[in-house]
Amino acid sequence: MKIAVDAMGGDKAPAEIIKGAVLAVQKYSCEIVLVGDKEKIRNMLDKESDGKNFPITIKHADEVINMGEHPADAVRCKKNSSIVVATKMVRDGECDAVLSAGSTGAAVAAAQLILKRIHGIGRPAIATPIPTPCGTTLLLDSGANVDSRPEHLIQSGIMGSLYAEHVLKIKNPLVALLNIGEEETKGNEQAKETYQLLKNLSTINFAGNAEGRDIPRGKFDVVICDGFVGNVVLKFGEGLALTIMELLTEELTANGGAKLLGKELIAKTFMNMSKRLDVSENGGAPLLGVNGYCVISHGSSDAKAICSAIGVTKNYVDSKIFERIKAAL
Amino acid sequence: MKIAVDAMGGDKAPAEIIKGAVLAVQKYSCEIVLVGDKEKIRNMLDKESDGKNFPITIKHADEVINMGEHPADAVRCKKNSSIVVATKMVRDGECDAVLSAGSTGAAVAAAQLILKRIHGIGRPAIATPIPTPCGTTLLLDSGANVDSRPEHLIQSGIMGSLYAEHVLKIKNPLVALLNIGEEETKGNEQAKETYQLLKNLSTINFAGNAEGRDIPRGKFDVVICDGFVGNVVLKFGEGLALTIMELLTEELTANGGAKLLGKELIAKTFMNMSKRLDVSENGGAPLLGVNGYCVISHGSSDAKAICSAIGVTKNYVDSKIFERIKAAL
Repeated sequence: MKIAVDAMGGDKAPAEIIKGAVLAVQKYSCEIVLVGDKEKIRNMLDKESDGKNFPITIKHADEVINMGEHPADAVRCKKNSSIVVATKMVRDGECDAVLSAGSTGAAVAAAQLILKRIHGIGRPAIATPIPTPCGTTLLLDSGANVDSRPEHLIQSGIMGSLYAEHVLKIKNPLVALLNIGEEETKGNEQAKETYQLLKNLSTINFAGNAEGRDIPRGKFDVVICDGFVGNVVLKFGEGLALTIMELLTEELTANGGAKLLGKELIAKTFMNMSKRLDVSENGGAPLLGVNGYCVISHGSSDAKAICSAIGVTKNYVDSKIFERIKAAL
Repeated sequence: MKIAVDAMGGDKAPAEIIKGAVLAVQKYSCEIVLVGDKEKIRNMLDKESDGKNFPITIKHADEVINMGEHPADAVRCKKNSSIVVATKMVRDGECDAVLSAGSTGAAVAAAQLILKRIHGIGRPAIATPIPTPCGTTLLLDSGANVDSRPEHLIQSGIMGSLYAEHVLKIKNPLVALLNIGEEETKGNEQAKETYQLLKNLSTINFAGNAEGRDIPRGKFDVVICDGFVGNVVLKFGEGLALTIMELLTEELTANGGAKLLGKELIAKTFMNMSKRLDVSENGGAPLLGVNGYCVISHGSSDAKAICSAIGVTKNYVDSKIFERIKAAL
């Protein structure tokens, strides 16, 4: 298996991306193609590999799409950008999958324009695994598209259910629709219409409406929503977790608990906590619905997160659910 | 000042509502009318007041609107329900404000049908104060209406800004639009259109787009969104906070920190934490945009939360911002 990794995408690119690739090839049996500035990558890679011979090659791409750029325009204009070149390698059969921690919009646009959507899919969706006390809840769409119609949400439900079953290995996954109440009459027009369609869909295990709190509580295996709502919810969670850690530190400092625990134990506890909550620690999020395997990592990914995302990518390709999605539609 | 309190609304009604009213009249200078089942309220009130003479009266209402009922239908049919009777007391000038911890939908429907919307307001909005490390961020709409158009979001911005300035006492409040990115080209059609309207509005201090994480980080004073998104985000926060507490307890138990702290200190720390995060501890959320003062409390409110919400209601009425909103439109 050969994975094209966008070496130039992400806040810590290329250094941490390259380190992550080196970790991954030692952990998983796969080949990696690092896509980006050949010279920079070669220098860093030589340092990292320390004379050892790893199954990592380099594909040159001299442009980079930055966070502020309009995704589709940038993909069309910067034909030699790392994400475009990496995605084309998948289209041309040179690689089995593409992974990027760069601009999510650019990765989605590249996948849509170069790999194209699967026949029958109106909008691809990013499926983000959310850690819960009892495992994982898959939230999709978490930001690929922001003006979804009910039929797009249905397609997300079908794709998410297949991903949960065949990649996350959850048997007969419970699929719910994100809404503002449990009752089927609740919600905006989009949610009410989608509910009726989901109710009559026999191919997934539809369990009704999910409320916001059900996501981090792990009540369902798959929760479907519009990409606007999914993106807001994910980022809200990031901010809230940080705020809670800060307030807790204040409380423990004020009540003497911090002294009892000691700096080291507090740091360790919070670090472990953050890891368990951190989406990027749980690897990448697949972009479901395009003709090829594309995985998106958090922009802040470090080497460990990239390594973990490469593991996710490998499982994803191994699952062959891409063929199942095509068959299901 | 006289406040009509829906004694029958909320998970812990009527007991905790009555206790909360007794606490409030001792803390704030106001009169309270408890609306609901006269006999039940009288018995409980006698027990609570312990022979003392508090400025609390009872207004009989023999019906209750339950959580599962269709809000507008229930308000129309149950003319003698506690929320309908309480809201009518405001309309008829017998009380200055109404407070309910019952069905949010019913309280909103009663306010819309009985008090009517302020001229120029298309949709009222619930403004929920979110605790942040540096104070409070006002999120609106957090669930009154779920299919908002850009003009409704603009109206929310104007009302939220006035509330932040005159009730929360924030000078020149920073108002932001909830979106999936900072750039003005980001977001769904609703967000993009709303951005352009806000940019050209001179009456508020528009600070651009807010991302989900900016809410709990306290980057802005007022964040505007659709009621669907606001409701999902608030409930997601509730669930996530609970999950974080559980995971932290697990971590501390596993690494020995729990033993060092002792059960009592852990309980105290988490309780204080929860209080600082808990929306209901920060009192009620005003329903802005109707012809009268209406405040909504969390369904799980206990006596302390009700007392705090009565304090919020009092400040809200004192501010006279209702007149300011009418003047601003």
